Amino acid sequence: MIPRAPWFGGDYNPEQWPREVWDDDIRLMQKAGVTVATVGVFSWAHLETADGEFDFEWLDAIIEKLHAVGIGVDLATATASPPPWLALAHPDILPVTADGVTLGVGSRQHYSPSSATYRRYAKRLVEKLVARYGHHPAVVAWHTNNEYGCHVSRCYSDESAVAFRAWLQEKYGTIAALNDAWGTAFWSQRYGSFDEVLPPRAMPSFPNPTQLLDFDRFSSDALLDLHRMEVEVIRAGSNAPITTNFMGLFEPLDYWKWAEQVDFVSDDFYPDPADESSVIVAAMHRDLMRSLGGGKPWMLMEQATSAVNWRTRNAPKSDSQYRLVSLQSVARGSDGLMHFQWRQSNRGAEKFHSGMVPHGGENTRVFRRVEAMGAELAGLADVMGTEVEAKVAIVLDWDSWWALRQAANPAQLDYRRTVFAWYRALWEKHVTVDFARPGADLSGYDLVVVPTLQVVTDAALAAVAEANAAGATVAVTYQSAILNDTLGVVDGGYLGSWQDLLGVRVEEFAPYAFPDQFENAPAGAPTTTIAGELSGTASGWSEIVHATDAEVKATFTEGIAAGGPAITRRSGEAPAWYIATQPEGELMGAIADALLADAGVTPLVATDEPRLEAVVRGGKLFLLNHSDEDATVSVGSTELQVAAGEAAILSVD
Amino acid sequence: MIPRAPWFGGDYNPEQWPREVWDDDIRLMQKAGVTVATVGVFSWAHLETADGEFDFEWLDAIIEKLHAVGIGVDLATATASPPPWLALAHPDILPVTADGVTLGVGSRQHYSPSSATYRRYAKRLVEKLVARYGHHPAVVAWHTNNEYGCHVSRCYSDESAVAFRAWLQEKYGTIAALNDAWGTAFWSQRYGSFDEVLPPRAMPSFPNPTQLLDFDRFSSDALLDLHRMEVEVIRAGSNAPITTNFMGLFEPLDYWKWAEQVDFVSDDFYPDPADESSVIVAAMHRDLMRSLGGGKPWMLMEQATSAVNWRTRNAPKSDSQYRLVSLQSVARGSDGLMHFQWRQSNRGAEKFHSGMVPHGGENTRVFRRVEAMGAELAGLADVMGTEVEAKVAIVLDWDSWWALRQAANPAQLDYRRTVFAWYRALWEKHVTVDFARPGADLSGYDLVVVPTLQVVTDAALAAVAEANAAGATVAVTYQSAILNDTLGVVDGGYLGSWQDLLGVRVEEFAPYAFPDQFENAPAGAPTTTIAGELSGTASGWSEIVHATDAEVKATFTEGIAAGGPAITRRSGEAPAWYIATQPEGELMGAIADALLADAGVTPLVATDEPRLEAVVRGGKLFLLNHSDEDATVSVGSTELQVAAGEAAILSVD
Amino acid sequence: MIPRAPWFGGDYNPEQWPREVWDDDIRLMQKAGVTVATVGVFSWAHLETADGEFDFEWLDAIIEKLHAVGIGVDLATATASPPPWLALAHPDILPVTADGVTLGVGSRQHYSPSSATYRRYAKRLVEKLVARYGHHPAVVAWHTNNEYGCHVSRCYSDESAVAFRAWLQEKYGTIAALNDAWGTAFWSQRYGSFDEVLPPRAMPSFPNPTQLLDFDRFSSDALLDLHRMEVEVIRAGSNAPITTNFMGLFEPLDYWKWAEQVDFVSDDFYPDPADESSVIVAAMHRDLMRSLGGGKPWMLMEQATSAVNWRTRNAPKSDSQYRLVSLQSVARGSDGLMHFQWRQSNRGAEKFHSGMVPHGGENTRVFRRVEAMGAELAGLADVMGTEVEAKVAIVLDWDSWWALRQAANPAQLDYRRTVFAWYRALWEKHVTVDFARPGADLSGYDLVVVPTLQVVTDAALAAVAEANAAGATVAVTYQSAILNDTLGVVDGGYLGSWQDLLGVRVEEFAPYAFPDQFENAPAGAPTTTIAGELSGTASGWSEIVHATDAEVKATFTEGIAAGGPAITRRSGEAPAWYIATQPEGELMGAIADALLADAGVTPLVATDEPRLEAVVRGGKLFLLNHSDEDATVSVGSTELQVAAGEAAILSVD
Repeated sequence: MIPRAPWFGGDYNPEQWPREVWDDDIRLMQKAGVTVATVGVFSWAHLETADGEFDFEWLDAIIEKLHAVGIGVDLATATASPPPWLALAHPDILPVTADGVTLGVGSRQHYSPSSATYRRYAKRLVEKLVARYGHHPAVVAWHTNNEYGCHVSRCYSDESAVAFRAWLQEKYGTIAALNDAWGTAFWSQRYGSFDEVLPPRAMPSFPNPTQLLDFDRFSSDALLDLHRMEVEVIRAGSNAPITTNFMGLFEPLDYWKWAEQVDFVSDDFYPDPADESSVIVAAMHRDLMRSLGGGKPWMLMEQATSAVNWRTRNAPKSDSQYRLVSLQSVARGSDGLMHFQWRQSNRGAEKFHSGMVPHGGENTRVFRRVEAMGAELAGLADVMGTEVEAKVAIVLDWDSWWALRQAANPAQLDYRRTVFAWYRALWEKHVTVDFARPGADLSGYDLVVVPTLQVVTDAALAAVAEANAAGATVAVTYQSAILNDTLGVVDGGYLGSWQDLLGVRVEEFAPYAFPDQFENAPAGAPTTTIAGELSGTASGWSEIVHATDAEVKATFTEGIAAGGPAITRRSGEAPAWYIATQPEGELMGAIADALLADAGVTPLVATDEPRLEAVVRGGKLFLLNHSDEDATVSVGSTELQVAAGEAAILSVD
Repeated sequence: MIPRAPWFGGDYNPEQWPREVWDDDIRLMQKAGVTVATVGVFSWAHLETADGEFDFEWLDAIIEKLHAVGIGVDLATATASPPPWLALAHPDILPVTADGVTLGVGSRQHYSPSSATYRRYAKRLVEKLVARYGHHPAVVAWHTNNEYGCHVSRCYSDESAVAFRAWLQEKYGTIAALNDAWGTAFWSQRYGSFDEVLPPRAMPSFPNPTQLLDFDRFSSDALLDLHRMEVEVIRAGSNAPITTNFMGLFEPLDYWKWAEQVDFVSDDFYPDPADESSVIVAAMHRDLMRSLGGGKPWMLMEQATSAVNWRTRNAPKSDSQYRLVSLQSVARGSDGLMHFQWRQSNRGAEKFHSGMVPHGGENTRVFRRVEAMGAELAGLADVMGTEVEAKVAIVLDWDSWWALRQAANPAQLDYRRTVFAWYRALWEKHVTVDFARPGADLSGYDLVVVPTLQVVTDAALAAVAEANAAGATVAVTYQSAILNDTLGVVDGGYLGSWQDLLGVRVEEFAPYAFPDQFENAPAGAPTTTIAGELSGTASGWSEIVHATDAEVKATFTEGIAAGGPAITRRSGEAPAWYIATQPEGELMGAIADALLADAGVTPLVATDEPRLEAVVRGGKLFLLNHSDEDATVSVGSTELQVAAGEAAILSVD
Repeated sequence: MIPRAPWFGGDYNPEQWPREVWDDDIRLMQKAGVTVATVGVFSWAHLETADGEFDFEWLDAIIEKLHAVGIGVDLATATASPPPWLALAHPDILPVTADGVTLGVGSRQHYSPSSATYRRYAKRLVEKLVARYGHHPAVVAWHTNNEYGCHVSRCYSDESAVAFRAWLQEKYGTIAALNDAWGTAFWSQRYGSFDEVLPPRAMPSFPNPTQLLDFDRFSSDALLDLHRMEVEVIRAGSNAPITTNFMGLFEPLDYWKWAEQVDFVSDDFYPDPADESSVIVAAMHRDLMRSLGGGKPWMLMEQATSAVNWRTRNAPKSDSQYRLVSLQSVARGSDGLMHFQWRQSNRGAEKFHSGMVPHGGENTRVFRRVEAMGAELAGLADVMGTEVEAKVAIVLDWDSWWALRQAANPAQLDYRRTVFAWYRALWEKHVTVDFARPGADLSGYDLVVVPTLQVVTDAALAAVAEANAAGATVAVTYQSAILNDTLGVVDGGYLGSWQDLLGVRVEEFAPYAFPDQFENAPAGAPTTTIAGELSGTASGWSEIVHATDAEVKATFTEGIAAGGPAITRRSGEAPAWYIATQPEGELMGAIADALLADAGVTPLVATDEPRLEAVVRGGKLFLLNHSDEDATVSVGSTELQVAAGEAAILSVD
């Protein structure tokens, strides 16, 4: 369990306020039930006011103030935003875009992940912090940097090119191996040595796909290496656990790899209060965070009490919205509720981002909801550290995400959208879902869903087949198992060894195309219908499928694939479904029902309200009604009402 | 009064034509009634054919030709487009974008406002011109440069960085003061010295807001400083009045500051003949020009006789459209009608821009309308130099415009659109409007409208309160008085001291947001309704308002603000309205009626036709019917008809 | 006739496959009836593995294997994609964008057309190839480079600037002549020497139009000069004919000039199977290729057997679609059917581009259709080398295309779209069309259509007038003959000498404009109606026309041009029509009927099905039914059925 859980608090930036405000902060923190504050995230310029000139007096003072009232400190390493003096003296720390534009000082995160100078200065700062606070009793955890990769996730500088080459040499050993893996025989791209290889900077046409993918992997690793550097420094001088704040389903970083390098996972997420689907996106992110850590608890490190400041239009939260997404986090495994930020800024780029103490002070609806949540969370202390059980897994993969983002593909598929479509269908069935890393052990799951997993390894293929052999129902969708992990076409034909698992062969893809090349593309994907035992609307994709050893559950009704299979089901040890299109609306729900029935997975509750969220954690059933309508819910033989916008928390066995 | 008013003529570029055309020009100018020609605007390369080699012979000749027939010369300083030889020899004159792209030779205005080399060469050229023509009897005015900032209003070069730092040092004195004003404690942006500060070049995330605003101010000032340099040179050698041509409601330049530095204001504006609203935009620009000069006359320096060449599709004007927007300018204070340009080009980037003499020559509808307008304007000579009275003021502010353009805001509001919405509502009520600078004396106005004035000074707050205390009805809209002039949140809560004036407190903003973060944002702003004494459609914005000392005239019907005040009215010395949303359609008209009734402002005429424009100047009532329908108009007890597309000019007391 | 026609085969890249695949390739080529393979297109890095180190062993081997089974080789010069080592050693070969971004290694075509280093290395490679294979009996043709200009058609580097200046000096002789031609008196752009002239790099406003046009011409010539360099090398060592693959109606290259420099024309085109209009676009491209070569046969050098990989969504072809567009090519003059590529890649950026041998191998619908087409083409051997007769010509001009793409125009017209609208109307009437170069002899045509030919020379004006004098019906549309070839306004008024030919005078343009300058432009062009003998819907354009010596066939009904002529017809030696708007829908068909009737041109067949394509070549009438409906077709007195998606090939006299 995370020390001092449940955490309740937020980012606290006392250096941005005059000291007379500090005592008011402490008073209000106590009033709100704050237990932990994240301190120092953007304080480098205050900790090191000039090269090698350190000032810890203010930090000493505030840590003592917090400690005196029993508030723990999640101590940030402050390396996320280098001071202006550092960039002026060492412009080599600055990141460079693919077009060669250097990104400079004036906002934050203006450093190249591969800059040796940045690394040297960051390391020295962390060393100073650890030396001073490594054994301070207030420090309950360390928080490296902040939202790695948020703004600068890929750097194309010359120094990054050198680091990329080193990464490639480590991976491939010889340039011949790289040439083979990248398929450089194509388009006369054969490299004579690693010195010729570059990041995928601006170029005339489509970059080599494997070069792009390796650069995506390298870029995730380059940032991870910075985190690991900080971890090593901290480990050497402190016993407190270490985390860094993730950002949900964030494309640039392979969080499966990252999660291995933290003591507990933490996450920042800001659902849009004006977007009805965003509570489901939030649920998906919570389940992902729990899954990344292997089922261990995790921490919601940042959420907003109301509006954010970076959307085109920033909607505020209602009391109910704030409460439900907060409880959702706890129900799905978070050991606390942290916020950005404690006191709303009155200057700078985030002054319109809500805080726990808003511009209007304590006599506001926002501060009142904070106080209420502090109290409610304290009452949920028993839940901290407990696990959440899921019988369904969705396989999620950064390699496939990166591959599908490339331009030269059968179609421009949105990986996040296809994964979310499956998550949403299951959420609306009141079923809890884990995410699984490709190749990871899937035993214990009754249903495994594999959406558009374009890139596969042998291990990924095997893990799904083994789960099926062990009795799990499996559902694989179109454009899965097309490429191997160097982006060559998978051996043995599309779907590789899953051809046998699924009892199908895929001959050719038929995404829907746009009507007139002389006109602009119309907005939105065209839809079609499929028919059969399962019928309804589908979008974006069809293909020519041969059912070699599977029952056809639906066929395409239009286009080149008309009459051919759209959905198939093979009855092996356990059912294995293949879904060759993107189901929409009610069809998606019907397919989810069929899969759950096959798998013998029972929803946690029965209700007609799809927006009634149900999760069990630590012997408690959380019922969160995100709908505008009251919901009637059956839990076993009990029936109860959950009013619109309300939550009910029941004890269960 | 401007010498030789009414001016009738246009930009005249004889250097672009063989000399045999010059005599035909003079003949046609006389036929058209031309009184003044603007000469030399883009002639630098002809005046200084190589570094230090000047050729004034052709300019002498054409000035003499014009003078001989009594046509005055508005003499341009020719500094708007440096010759290629200058950029080749001194590439440091070239401007640089925020991404580091240098903008080169081949079009026009390729100079950095902060280039010392450009300034040196420009100054020498102006000195030569003033030495030669400073006391020439034909020269009725000087015209510095041309449309300052039209294409390059902000430069991010290293030399501009140096100039920006000097501007900041002048403003703040110490780096500590800058750190305080900019709030650099946020995101670790604290500067150790002015040498570390940069223009807001490409950077990873949101720039510091105050840095952005100061750079906007600096950029306006940097160009103004070039104008002032030219003014100083001219003043030393000529008594003719000096102007430079503005561009209407032009975002990059704070024309309140600029107008202080000209002897008379002048303006270029090109309403789109295919856009019905553009005659109202034109009226707004005329009123702005009059207001910038403190009610003094001003000059319409450029308009088109028919189509322009820079829109996606360039519609021509009808005879009626040309006549009505011309008369509109005179009615709203212009002491003449100038055009770009005299003879339509037959080469170069503007050859499809109409001229007074079109490609088709004198036997064309365009030349005939020019002749007719020359005669009509001569008949309006008595109006020249007279004033226009307005009882309504709209407060207009470049700081607020610049602040609202920034990305990290509650919502992306379009300042020009919100100002125009109020102008239009009053125009359609046949009421004349002045624009007022924040903090300026508002006594004499019966109604003061303050749309989205996000940034305020104490003076701006006080001026509106004083006007109200003196009996003026006041209307303030949402997102006003939120920030002080360093973009810190205003002291004492949103609206600052206007909380008492208006009798309201604003707790939280609730702009409308988009439905699905996984989809593209839909086009257009969503609308909602408000209900109460004033009811109807509103868009884009709601907020949580508390009416502490005001009557609630309308409440929100939807969303988080539902049930709370949308429009309030406090009865103090005079009514003070607060409007917490963007009214649309008929609701806007109903609010305008209510405000005018409160203020006791009577429209100039009564008519059912909203597109009947009415203005009084110099004892003449101009009635301009922009509608496709004939209009019946009551002026006092008189009723008359104004046919569609026609004008009537009545003598009034 | 092209040696060894009909060609049937495709790009063959054996260097991308292990040698064990080669024998399977040969077996399958024979099975499919392959006659010619294009070899070596992207093999530079395999032919020259390091600077000056050449390896021809693999190429020797594969050429022998092909030769052994009677398959000819279209030998590519391999210069399209320089190896990485070359760019590393000589970064001066890399192209630079107008914003100064260098395009680097990683895709293909990363060379500046003006790089002396690239030229030197490319020349040496071609010399080596010609020395080795110049007289090899398998080599039936040479194929320079690949798709010149596909990704990099314009380079703005310093070396390109030098080359541009040399081109300008060659063209203009003196800088005074350039100043005169470019109209540099405008905007102070006068150049003192050629050294001051630059490519139209990033600049503040509209570039000088003639500079832009000359840079477009220079850029086409710079690539053509590379092709000519290769041709000279090949001519010196081989007697085989030389081609290079064009890309249909490709904006950057003036293929009229290019076609003079090839022994036979060849073309790559990929109609979108999901776009119904694309078969008509394909037909247009086929007719263009035939016309470029002066009526000689030409070669379809690349088409796809099914999907491509570079659209947003890549639709596959049906068997019918593949067959019909293939037969269309032959019917319209191609002496064969070549494909990209023989064996579908399993790596690199084009692995999702279909091949003759798809990922699924020979037991696939794609390979079966390839086999069938190989056999069908062999049966059409008699057609090879024969001509196609057309009585209708459309005048097509790159100068006008380039001029209309510029920003400072009366409206943003889409030249390709306006040309296609006329082509389509005639295609749907089952009439065969040639394209004609401006100024070329038009005798022999009964109907000449001139769409939006904005730029004209005296020769272009004369050729159309002479055709009319000789009895051809002529149709000229709006925005033709406005500018001369230095983009000055044409002498004597818009339409120049065509004013007499057509009996009209054009006073002013009136394109339709958008409704509200404060809003975004709506999608799609507004439409209006015209009325009279010809009436219906038209779009985008109107203008003020005076019919001085012509019958008015339709008048505008709306806007400034209302009541004035929209379509006129002069009865001279032969009818001469002027069409002052863009007809849409049925109106376009009615105008086509009227023009064909005037010209006495009879469609090849009579049918109610517009998508029934009819062409005669080599004594064969090809009837291709692209519709989803069966068609009834009358050929003379014979009536027959052509089923949906089917072809009929009849012998005719």
